[in-house]
Amino acid sequence: MKEVKHLKIENSMKVSDLVRGFSGVGFGAGKIAEASSIMKQMFEDGNCKIFLGIAGAMVPAGMKSVILDLLDRVDVFVTTGATLTHDLIEDLGEKHYLGSEFENDEKLNKEGIDRIYNILMKNSVYEKLEDFFSENYDILRKCDNIKDFLWKLGELSPGGGILKKCYKKKIPIFCPGIADSGLGLMMWGRIAAGRGETNIDVFGDMNEIIDFSWKSKKTGVIYVGGGLPKNFIQQSLQFSKGADFGIQITTDRPEPGGSSGAPLREGISWGKMKSQANFVDVSCDATIALPLIYSSIK
Amino acid sequence: MKEVKHLKIENSMKVSDLVRGFSGVGFGAGKIAEASSIMKQMFEDGNCKIFLGIAGAMVPAGMKSVILDLLDRVDVFVTTGATLTHDLIEDLGEKHYLGSEFENDEKLNKEGIDRIYNILMKNSVYEKLEDFFSENYDILRKCDNIKDFLWKLGELSPGGGILKKCYKKKIPIFCPGIADSGLGLMMWGRIAAGRGETNIDVFGDMNEIIDFSWKSKKTGVIYVGGGLPKNFIQQSLQFSKGADFGIQITTDRPEPGGSSGAPLREGISWGKMKSQANFVDVSCDATIALPLIYSSIK
Amino acid sequence: MKEVKHLKIENSMKVSDLVRGFSGVGFGAGKIAEASSIMKQMFEDGNCKIFLGIAGAMVPAGMKSVILDLLDRVDVFVTTGATLTHDLIEDLGEKHYLGSEFENDEKLNKEGIDRIYNILMKNSVYEKLEDFFSENYDILRKCDNIKDFLWKLGELSPGGGILKKCYKKKIPIFCPGIADSGLGLMMWGRIAAGRGETNIDVFGDMNEIIDFSWKSKKTGVIYVGGGLPKNFIQQSLQFSKGADFGIQITTDRPEPGGSSGAPLREGISWGKMKSQANFVDVSCDATIALPLIYSSIK
Amino acid sequence: MKEVKHLKIENSMKVSDLVRGFSGVGFGAGKIAEASSIMKQMFEDGNCKIFLGIAGAMVPAGMKSVILDLLDRVDVFVTTGATLTHDLIEDLGEKHYLGSEFENDEKLNKEGIDRIYNILMKNSVYEKLEDFFSENYDILRKCDNIKDFLWKLGELSPGGGILKKCYKKKIPIFCPGIADSGLGLMMWGRIAAGRGETNIDVFGDMNEIIDFSWKSKKTGVIYVGGGLPKNFIQQSLQFSKGADFGIQITTDRPEPGGSSGAPLREGISWGKMKSQANFVDVSCDATIALPLIYSSIK
Repeated sequence: MKEVKHLKIENSMKVSDLVRGFSGVGFGAGKIAEASSIMKQMFEDGNCKIFLGIAGAMVPAGMKSVILDLLDRVDVFVTTGATLTHDLIEDLGEKHYLGSEFENDEKLNKEGIDRIYNILMKNSVYEKLEDFFSENYDILRKCDNIKDFLWKLGELSPGGGILKKCYKKKIPIFCPGIADSGLGLMMWGRIAAGRGETNIDVFGDMNEIIDFSWKSKKTGVIYVGGGLPKNFIQQSLQFSKGADFGIQITTDRPEPGGSSGAPLREGISWGKMKSQANFVDVSCDATIALPLIYSSIK
Repeated sequence: MKEVKHLKIENSMKVSDLVRGFSGVGFGAGKIAEASSIMKQMFEDGNCKIFLGIAGAMVPAGMKSVILDLLDRVDVFVTTGATLTHDLIEDLGEKHYLGSEFENDEKLNKEGIDRIYNILMKNSVYEKLEDFFSENYDILRKCDNIKDFLWKLGELSPGGGILKKCYKKKIPIFCPGIADSGLGLMMWGRIAAGRGETNIDVFGDMNEIIDFSWKSKKTGVIYVGGGLPKNFIQQSLQFSKGADFGIQITTDRPEPGGSSGAPLREGISWGKMKSQANFVDVSCDATIALPLIYSSIK
Repeated sequence: MKEVKHLKIENSMKVSDLVRGFSGVGFGAGKIAEASSIMKQMFEDGNCKIFLGIAGAMVPAGMKSVILDLLDRVDVFVTTGATLTHDLIEDLGEKHYLGSEFENDEKLNKEGIDRIYNILMKNSVYEKLEDFFSENYDILRKCDNIKDFLWKLGELSPGGGILKKCYKKKIPIFCPGIADSGLGLMMWGRIAAGRGETNIDVFGDMNEIIDFSWKSKKTGVIYVGGGLPKNFIQQSLQFSKGADFGIQITTDRPEPGGSSGAPLREGISWGKMKSQANFVDVSCDATIALPLIYSSIK
Repeated sequence: MKEVKHLKIENSMKVSDLVRGFSGVGFGAGKIAEASSIMKQMFEDGNCKIFLGIAGAMVPAGMKSVILDLLDRVDVFVTTGATLTHDLIEDLGEKHYLGSEFENDEKLNKEGIDRIYNILMKNSVYEKLEDFFSENYDILRKCDNIKDFLWKLGELSPGGGILKKCYKKKIPIFCPGIADSGLGLMMWGRIAAGRGETNIDVFGDMNEIIDFSWKSKKTGVIYVGGGLPKNFIQQSLQFSKGADFGIQITTDRPEPGGSSGAPLREGISWGKMKSQANFVDVSCDATIALPLIYSSIK
């Protein structure tokens, strides 16, 4: 048995040293250290193909640069429509603001401000989105599948966010629930305005992620916030022999039985995770844990 | 100020009496009583159009009959692909089983058993799904949009589950993330096998829910488990004047900022909920809270 | 493997039937059913000595009658000083009130109202407590240990609450953290006012609970809300051969490593729980779960 | 409104820079930054008297050095008996070990190993404790109150832990629930063995903390893990005008109404926190959040 080594905080400590210190201790801190070590192994393993799933309002919260950094290290990106909507909103020059979870929502509504916990956004951002989609609708509506649609959005975007990076670096980006987002609403708005039907096949890009999973000899997964991105990666990984590395960051609970809170271990029964895989569940707010883990190995 | 009235448990008590007793007390029990009262008002209000969103593994857990009952009382149903996959699996004669969250997942994997917390399912169920989709693929792949695809599944299903009921009673059913599910995998399998492309437009059924929301004078929402169903209903409700009634059941937390854990109050800022609406957040496992609330008013 | 049996809600259903229905389903509902069955076994087992630990603001919330009922079925009661303070406050004729967790706390403070989540209490209740303790201090301060002190409080109390019942029925009641409560403050107030020192030995009643545990052939535990009551019972049970039955109700998490959120299983390593014991962890708000479970077997 | 500034992770980043980066973002990360700023203000304010409350198994987890550091910055320390038991165990030369939350508890029990989530401890440590208490019992049993007892333990301890430091630096240390701990068991063991009664007054040291609170012009609180330490500090602060600064770190939830999960804001109604106070609730595992916050300002 390995002794607990009490964490010693040094002056002007580096994050890497703090997290190295975490490796000698228990509970959540120990899990952070384990995740750091697993992320390093994944990133340094030349054969490992990495699937990153991001759910939750990480872009409004200020995690866009962290995600942009991670995109340099991963092979497949799966996220929610909301993440990409907020990314595009920023690409169009709009902003998110720091607020408080105690704001008066009725007052915010009158002022045209939308609240996401302690983050605020002007409702007027949707006008810029409307203009962008009106201008580009004829191109967008002809995309064959969701991935092509997202890469096209990235090509057309004037900014330098997530969509743009995925397009420029040809990172496969999947977003099966795209209709459930501001992007979906924008497309709907043009359809409703008679600008012509779309023809974006809901199943049209599944083959790419499953085929990639199938061909990968070694895989790693990073699930942030659970939700559809986690589940979509997991179902694709059933066609590999299961992931070799795994990091899950969420505060969702296992007891109510949903996929978001399910421990990675559960995936072993399904063949989504190898039984000998190196994996860890980090029960922590992702805005704390993800930067901490990533910073410790950068 | 209204006095706390200590809950008195009677012999052979009815659920309705227990929940009435909850109305005199605080914390979670008080919330259950509030939800019961709001559900009753929603159901009895002839003008109120009700949107039900169900996420999480409620069908495997044994909540299918509760959902079937609720479908008689609501106007729009939004759910996950997983919910409908498990529903169809049962319609095809397969079962879910009671297990334990402590099972050995490696052993389960070798035995061909998939685990969802303390619920088990034979992996062989997918063979029946394969057969069903192979047989019906030529019909299914020609559906125009997801809702039509789901109603078609309901029409073809040999059983008496959720899909069948939505089809038979013409309950609009939405599932924007359908690719992320066993149903999605089944469709992909046929595409990959060269059975022909699909043509199911990802944005093709958005107009129906938004239009319905727009035309509804009064609306109520029931969100179970957050996720995409909650968010999709909420974004549609922005085109009404916001919901008049709301019940949310989830154990997800607000602090990490995701939509699933966001209190209903947050929706007021967005115009998804009226500021004078009658709503309640119930922080509880949905398999406990939903039957308890529904049973109290049935 | 036992099939999941979908829960069917009947009209005017009894709680016992609802919870019987829970026994065929998974997740939290299944745990409630399991707890119901274990509670029934404990209560019906003539040889089983039952230890009840209650933490959290159950009395302010309106759970006093439920606790009074349970006291008829248990052999040892361990609780917090706060529980007993609020019990005595009610015995002295004061009340708790239903409020909201969104109250303006600054305003409440100016109005002399204390808030416990969505329960309110007038700060003036402490005046009645002061009077009661001033009047009875000379008797109270001479108690030898905490249990005697609490029984004396029960004897002196004019009401019919928990303290009174424990005194009248000679139910051993333990409250090791009593200084941390309004009762503690009342005693301190008299000491500070020069009414004489106390002489209540902090370790003086430990022998009774440990001795009882030691002599019990079979034991059962009910832990509500974790905290000191759970831990105090557990440490005493180390001197039995570990509990034979166990029910734990809490929303505290295991991951941060504290005793309150630790699953009952952990106690097996310590010898606080038998490895073959019949036990269940219910992850649920106790104001919902405890009445539901108890009502199902009453 | 202040814009969200996306967190940029630099190479070999210092913790202080990471947490400074957190100040531009939302959700949990923003709370960590706020806590860092408040801790800095507390520590630099020459007039502010600081009360530190620690619950949970922080010593077994490897946080002893962090606590020892914090003891240099605070004026009053309140903790659980378990914290001090594990501290003394280490002072006596025994260790805690890194394990896993998935260990087989029955096997551990047979091997004489106790589990605290993913931390292990040999049950034989209690033999050393027994020897220590047997040797020193005649001195210990004559202490007048809990604080004196703890300082005496610190004086007698051969090691350099928390008890020793509080004794040497005369830091007032309170532990109202001491009977509920290994220390309590050790004292009980001597009493049961006929080594003589104790005479340690349960209310005997309350005056010191309340008097200190009363006389402090400005106060700050740091609550780690809720529990009895938080509540005991809060009740003492009612005799000040309420705290001016506050940091709470816990994953306990507010909804079930217990003191541990109650947001600091609730304390305003009671007069435990000033309405204009600078305070923050950090919803995070304390083994992650506390070192992160402290390291950012060291």
